[in-house]
Amino acid sequence: MKNKLLCDIGNTNFSFSNGTKVSVENFDITSIHEKIYYISVNAYWEKRLSMEENWINIRSFIDFSKYYESMGIDRIMVCEALANAVVIDAGSAITVDVIKNEKHEGGYIYPGLAAMAKCFKDISPALEVSFNFDIDLDKMPKNTQDALSYGALAPLLSNLREITQDLPVLLTGGDAPRFLPLIPNAKIDNDLVFKGMKKILEKTKEKQC
Amino acid sequence: MKNKLLCDIGNTNFSFSNGTKVSVENFDITSIHEKIYYISVNAYWEKRLSMEENWINIRSFIDFSKYYESMGIDRIMVCEALANAVVIDAGSAITVDVIKNEKHEGGYIYPGLAAMAKCFKDISPALEVSFNFDIDLDKMPKNTQDALSYGALAPLLSNLREITQDLPVLLTGGDAPRFLPLIPNAKIDNDLVFKGMKKILEKTKEKQC
Repeated sequence: MKNKLLCDIGNTNFSFSNGTKVSVENFDITSIHEKIYYISVNAYWEKRLSMEENWINIRSFIDFSKYYESMGIDRIMVCEALANAVVIDAGSAITVDVIKNEKHEGGYIYPGLAAMAKCFKDISPALEVSFNFDIDLDKMPKNTQDALSYGALAPLLSNLREITQDLPVLLTGGDAPRFLPLIPNAKIDNDLVFKGMKKILEKTKEKQC
Repeated sequence: MKNKLLCDIGNTNFSFSNGTKVSVENFDITSIHEKIYYISVNAYWEKRLSMEENWINIRSFIDFSKYYESMGIDRIMVCEALANAVVIDAGSAITVDVIKNEKHEGGYIYPGLAAMAKCFKDISPALEVSFNFDIDLDKMPKNTQDALSYGALAPLLSNLREITQDLPVLLTGGDAPRFLPLIPNAKIDNDLVFKGMKKILEKTKEKQC
């Protein structure tokens, strides 16, 4: 188990469990001969790798009845990794998933920070600002930069306060460090996808024994 | 006072207090000879109309010290209209302003519904959906359409619950009817800008007497 090489294929990178990251443009399939267990949200690469004997798609091991149709496989892996948690994956989109007693209770999608900034800019050039993460969210904003920063952050945080209750909050994704100081008791865990993949593989092994 | 003609000039329309609406492209300045009191967020038209004797810009009557710099003049008019309220202007952007004892406590900006839909679509074509306004926001979503609808609506509504307290909630803007069923005790008032303009003119008259 310990030595299995895992790979999480996104729209921009191949991320390996040994820490290697290769951009999808630069990835050379002939460079790897060992067995690799992977998930992919990248349709092109998922199809391409299905022709390679040493690339094993974890998709076939998943009990999809636990999740909703069209839910990203990376999000499913994160849920597989946990028993009770609210997981916030702050990437190009922000996904918020609630897991109770190893069951996925549901989740939602919110714009990522860069997407939100672009969204404001697209509404009007006057709304193009960089967000202020040091803003006091207990006060109503009194300038445009703070008004947009509050709009990007405070509604999401208000909703998290309502839904989190006593569940631990785990942050992952590129913008996790931005949100860490804003959410009481939250922790960053960037290995959730690989943890979920390992758990799926362990379960599959058990069944096969 | 009753007969004063008011005009709210936006980026797309001239909106008159008598109910007339003319798109900025089709507006013929020679068509009106009577005195008109106006506000404009449209820089081109504000400059153009400054050369016309019968067009009176209300901007010069405003006490800007009460508001933050760069706050839209239409938003300022809405605040002038009210003594105690949370005002949600749901247009291309959604602005939320808190007014207590005739004082603007601050406010924030959130993407409008169309902007939010475009934002999701820009993140990934897989996130292109029309929002479901009949969604039960007390439950975590279990499909992509609901996950995006919840993400667009629930965080904003959670924040409004936190900041509204006992203040009345007034809705204005094109998407006001979408939000009306989602916010308890909210009311639509589409005349807030004109009400603010009238109040400013009354105050100005009093000072001049």
